[in-house]
Amino acid sequence: MTSVADLVARVRPAGAADAAAVRRRVDALAKPPGSLGALEDVAVRLATALGDPPLALRRRTVLVFAADHGVAARGVSAYPPGVTALMCGAFVSGGAAVSALARSAGAEVVAVDVGVDAPPGALPGVMDGKVRRGSRDLSVEDALTPAEVCQAVLVGAAAVLTRAAGTDVFALGDMGIGNTTAAGAVTAALLGMPAAAMVGPGTGVDAAGRARKEAAVTAALARLGDSRDPLRVLAACGGLEIAAVAGAVLAAASASRPVVTDGFITTAGALAAVRLAPAAADWLFASHRSPEPGHHAQLAALGLEPLLDLRLRLGEGTGAVLALPLLDAAGSMLRHMAPLAAVLPRPGA
Amino acid sequence: MTSVADLVARVRPAGAADAAAVRRRVDALAKPPGSLGALEDVAVRLATALGDPPLALRRRTVLVFAADHGVAARGVSAYPPGVTALMCGAFVSGGAAVSALARSAGAEVVAVDVGVDAPPGALPGVMDGKVRRGSRDLSVEDALTPAEVCQAVLVGAAAVLTRAAGTDVFALGDMGIGNTTAAGAVTAALLGMPAAAMVGPGTGVDAAGRARKEAAVTAALARLGDSRDPLRVLAACGGLEIAAVAGAVLAAASASRPVVTDGFITTAGALAAVRLAPAAADWLFASHRSPEPGHHAQLAALGLEPLLDLRLRLGEGTGAVLALPLLDAAGSMLRHMAPLAAVLPRPGA
Repeated sequence: MTSVADLVARVRPAGAADAAAVRRRVDALAKPPGSLGALEDVAVRLATALGDPPLALRRRTVLVFAADHGVAARGVSAYPPGVTALMCGAFVSGGAAVSALARSAGAEVVAVDVGVDAPPGALPGVMDGKVRRGSRDLSVEDALTPAEVCQAVLVGAAAVLTRAAGTDVFALGDMGIGNTTAAGAVTAALLGMPAAAMVGPGTGVDAAGRARKEAAVTAALARLGDSRDPLRVLAACGGLEIAAVAGAVLAAASASRPVVTDGFITTAGALAAVRLAPAAADWLFASHRSPEPGHHAQLAALGLEPLLDLRLRLGEGTGAVLALPLLDAAGSMLRHMAPLAAVLPRPGA
Repeated sequence: MTSVADLVARVRPAGAADAAAVRRRVDALAKPPGSLGALEDVAVRLATALGDPPLALRRRTVLVFAADHGVAARGVSAYPPGVTALMCGAFVSGGAAVSALARSAGAEVVAVDVGVDAPPGALPGVMDGKVRRGSRDLSVEDALTPAEVCQAVLVGAAAVLTRAAGTDVFALGDMGIGNTTAAGAVTAALLGMPAAAMVGPGTGVDAAGRARKEAAVTAALARLGDSRDPLRVLAACGGLEIAAVAGAVLAAASASRPVVTDGFITTAGALAAVRLAPAAADWLFASHRSPEPGHHAQLAALGLEPLLDLRLRLGEGTGAVLALPLLDAAGSMLRHMAPLAAVLPRPGA
């Protein structure tokens, strides 16, 4: 993949099966129509993307995109920036939350350094896609140059494309101290919403920290003006991992692979991807509803209904991994349920 | 097991680990405290019941208790009573919804005939525990005799106890045309709530059918008077599968096995079990929130938070099976996550 424009041009809408035909078949299975609720909606989308019935999603990869954020120096997080690099070590050693949950779901975790503030070679076992050692401080200047944004998008795309042949479904995760601030700025800009509507507790910052987050987002939005161009927004706000998520979504859609978002950060990246290539939305599945106030607006804009609502606010891809068995169940429903007519030979009897 | 009193006496509270100690360990894992939300609560309860860390719940059995209901003749369901027996065939052949979802979750489905209106031998592959061919019509007389209630409770207990040695976790399901009416009557009686608060759409009945459901529940409550004795309530309202669920919950608690409820019907049985032996609640895990209006009240009375909210209204154990991977994830978190201190060697640095 040589350019973001190439990547965008390769995105194809889902169409392996006709959605209305799949819905009719789901309605005719051995259950009252609609009685499996949201699982039926997932089944219809999965079959539309992959064919009816869809193949089992046996091989699953969680891509955890990691980067640091200049704005973290402003005290917008409960944790210091050095945690980003340390958590990359935990993804590799298997002691992180996403590692434990991925093991349970039969998924492989791949951590990708898109811009961790650590020297080259400092993160053994992490895929190296470092664009720079952290983004600039979005509260005072553009976080990234246009070239850096494109490079990060292509890192995310490459992470998907190098694994696509051996992966049936991708789950997306993020790691980056300060990245709810960047995601809030990206989301506010793309949706034309105020900073206050985007600023939540993150992983546990206090009220003063929230006020600093809101001030930082407000400053980024003021600098950005009215632009809603996704690449321009990503340059103004960062972060490198959000741009990489956008690239991963575009690449998954181009490679006909379902891709599961996690919380506020990855959904910000997915939103940017869909603004670049609307058909990418066909390949997106939302895992959970985050307590972050802006997540609801992101999902509404994408037209996605999340499957879980467990008060998760960790990131790393934990929610995305937890949702994989629900995608499995939806597929199994299509592969194994009998038609109602086969169970009730004389309907109305 | 010779009597319900014996069964009740064998129920033990969870106590393989100290809940507060488990909570402290969970808080000290490599994540912000509380950031895995409801999954942390499940992890704490699981470890309290099974030890910290809990063993993996590899061997899983879905018990689907089936029975017919005399009240079905009153037009309280969108489906005719004969569907109960036909669906038992689908559980065995693997074409039912619960069969497809159980396959995805690695669970074995065991259908138990507690009182299907079909002749002896008519349901090959179904475990035979038939007490009688359907309960009596709760709108005009007691649905069951006290002896029939006890027999059904013991059928449920036996289904668990004969499988406990080879099962790490039980999921509960139900099949019985008309059983949301019986479950509504049981729940209203046990919680002291009006019939109107208990009557919902079931698997799809219309407004006139709902009015007939409410009238039937009201009649059963009037006959019952102020009694909240669980066995008396089950006799007045039925059904045989609800009584069997109660027995299964008591037996699981006595055998130290976690047991996962499904929707409104199985939670009615679980509520009766907990009213007989309050410590049984320690072994219960609620899978999903049903759209049935009475389900919320049941869960509140049991102090349980459901893990899923997918608009499921099918029964059969479908929700219970869908929640099993979340229990797996909670256990994996306890087995595999590193302490935060191991990841961040110098906290505050």
